[in-house]
Amino acid sequence: MPAFVPPNRLLLGPGPSAVPARVLQATAQPTIGHLDPAFIGMMDELNDLVRYAMQTENHCTLTISGPGSAGMEACIGNLVEAGDTVVVCRNGVFGERMRQLVIRAGATAIAVDQTWGEPIDPVALDQALREHPEASLVAFVHAETSTGVLNDAEQLARIADEHGCLSVMDCVASVGGVPVRIDEWGIDAAYTGSQKCLACPPGLAPATFGPRAIERIQARKTPTASWMFDISELTRYWSGGARRNYHHTAPVNALYGLHEALVLLREEGLDASWKRHGSVSSLACSGLADLGLQLTVNEAHRAPQLLVVQVPHGVDDAQFRRQLLDVEGIEIGGGLGPGAGKVWRIGLMGHGAREANVERLLGAMSRQFDALGLQGIERAS
Amino acid sequence: MPAFVPPNRLLLGPGPSAVPARVLQATAQPTIGHLDPAFIGMMDELNDLVRYAMQTENHCTLTISGPGSAGMEACIGNLVEAGDTVVVCRNGVFGERMRQLVIRAGATAIAVDQTWGEPIDPVALDQALREHPEASLVAFVHAETSTGVLNDAEQLARIADEHGCLSVMDCVASVGGVPVRIDEWGIDAAYTGSQKCLACPPGLAPATFGPRAIERIQARKTPTASWMFDISELTRYWSGGARRNYHHTAPVNALYGLHEALVLLREEGLDASWKRHGSVSSLACSGLADLGLQLTVNEAHRAPQLLVVQVPHGVDDAQFRRQLLDVEGIEIGGGLGPGAGKVWRIGLMGHGAREANVERLLGAMSRQFDALGLQGIERAS
Repeated sequence: MPAFVPPNRLLLGPGPSAVPARVLQATAQPTIGHLDPAFIGMMDELNDLVRYAMQTENHCTLTISGPGSAGMEACIGNLVEAGDTVVVCRNGVFGERMRQLVIRAGATAIAVDQTWGEPIDPVALDQALREHPEASLVAFVHAETSTGVLNDAEQLARIADEHGCLSVMDCVASVGGVPVRIDEWGIDAAYTGSQKCLACPPGLAPATFGPRAIERIQARKTPTASWMFDISELTRYWSGGARRNYHHTAPVNALYGLHEALVLLREEGLDASWKRHGSVSSLACSGLADLGLQLTVNEAHRAPQLLVVQVPHGVDDAQFRRQLLDVEGIEIGGGLGPGAGKVWRIGLMGHGAREANVERLLGAMSRQFDALGLQGIERAS
Repeated sequence: MPAFVPPNRLLLGPGPSAVPARVLQATAQPTIGHLDPAFIGMMDELNDLVRYAMQTENHCTLTISGPGSAGMEACIGNLVEAGDTVVVCRNGVFGERMRQLVIRAGATAIAVDQTWGEPIDPVALDQALREHPEASLVAFVHAETSTGVLNDAEQLARIADEHGCLSVMDCVASVGGVPVRIDEWGIDAAYTGSQKCLACPPGLAPATFGPRAIERIQARKTPTASWMFDISELTRYWSGGARRNYHHTAPVNALYGLHEALVLLREEGLDASWKRHGSVSSLACSGLADLGLQLTVNEAHRAPQLLVVQVPHGVDDAQFRRQLLDVEGIEIGGGLGPGAGKVWRIGLMGHGAREANVERLLGAMSRQFDALGLQGIERAS
């Protein structure tokens, strides 16, 4: 069996995003031991870099050895116990996934629903919390990867707090691309993913837990169902200093890559990165409109790093994306859940958020529309 | 903050082991999408390579997106339900970890204990199963990384079967280093790790589930506590063919590396790899004895890929290992649990199982003993 050589792709889907050469090369450095003093020093630096990316001073800031969904499981699994009531904001696939995880933890999940493509209504959250004074946690997604909506995280966290609830935020698609301010917004726990605006290969989930979250974890009546994601155990490895305990074998090379991706982010600066994502996104929005494509999310609530457009009438979703991949070497995403077959998800994330990539995408889409014989006016759906 | 550059190390501890340049370079190839047809083709190849490494035809053979402990959690979490009784063979840290996971799954764990450094007694397992006819699963570790003992997997699985129990095996430290024959031995579920005899960076857990294990998973009364490791969901992604479902974002680059590591194993051939581990181990055993070091495990039950020796009288464990690391650039492992401070664990695993590495280690240990002023005769404890 021959070695696997990946084809050339420009990744402009919902993630993974394009990974810079410096990050790829970092992952290819020789493996060292997960308890090597040099590696432990690297982990401490990495925790600081994650604190910077997530804008937090939380002592308990670490990286879960698994993809973003593992970060979700670590947060929900530690903050929720059987019998709890959790209010989950749900306006896309990942809000629904949070709800599923709450149910698996044996808790009651109260959904605050919103039409896909619209942000969660803070009044609806407030109302749900009034109706469920027994709720102890509010869970929500910041940038919904399935719809391209940016929920108002600061406001949702404030409402949770007003009702005496902790908050847990999915910021998988937002960290690095738009402002995420864990401490300023009063978010109690949050997780992100390596493979979106952090421009790192997929497989790691940086996460952070504030003092109130740690207090709740320490007061649990039962251990977490998962040993792998038990924060009480993990912190002894990630934050144990010189007396660090062995827990599991950390994914050494993947962590090299995340460290380098975050060094790159720090070199650019968060403000500059957010600004770049915004301006590249504006360029893409104009260009997509010029092609006759319709954005599904109102500008006021649009996640700039993930643009969702309707598949034009007369275009076969899967066939078009396959052509774009095979002929142009560009990946964009199809819809998820109710959006399947109806929308495309265009990611301008991390290293991939570049004007040149937007130009290449617009040119490629235009050529493929031409190949299908579609005229501009017909494309508007 | 500067880029992290790992120091030069020869990894001769209990894992991670030395990773060949070809594998490191494979991980540094450009990231592509986790739903890209080219990536899906790679996953199918990878499943076949894992089947080869584990000697199984099981359809449900996949790679868990996490380290070996995640593989453990996937196997136990899927095969165990609240109220079950599970017999766990325990003669080291990883048997105890299996027991902990059984308890977290809400089941009753019956331990079959054995002195550390000795293999599980099949008669004791048989006896425990007679006393607990309600048991539905037997869990055991093949090569105990904490002690260097090789348990008789074939016999333990046969006894489980005789009592109508399924078997789950931890073969994290054994696959690639000594014969592992899932189908021939009748093992129902097993997991390994990428970072030992497979010579790949840590962070992935190839796993396999036989028909009886799948039947049990399908007959579960409750969903698994973990969404991340729910085999019913994972198989739709890993074995779904063209109609593959999105589950989580696979760790694309890490999987490139595992694919290449397994291609290398297939090029060498399992028989040749087992033989190499055996002969390199013999060389190391003689050399360690010549240095006056005492092996803790009888040859008949010794895992050749992981030699455990007593720390000689008058030698400070941590200080000696630190000297070996700092001066000689060689990592060996300390003891775990009751072995902490008392034994060293010397791994000759995967790409690291080379005569030249043994010679380098013996020379380095000898120099460090000399530096401490220890004579050969004093070293025997």
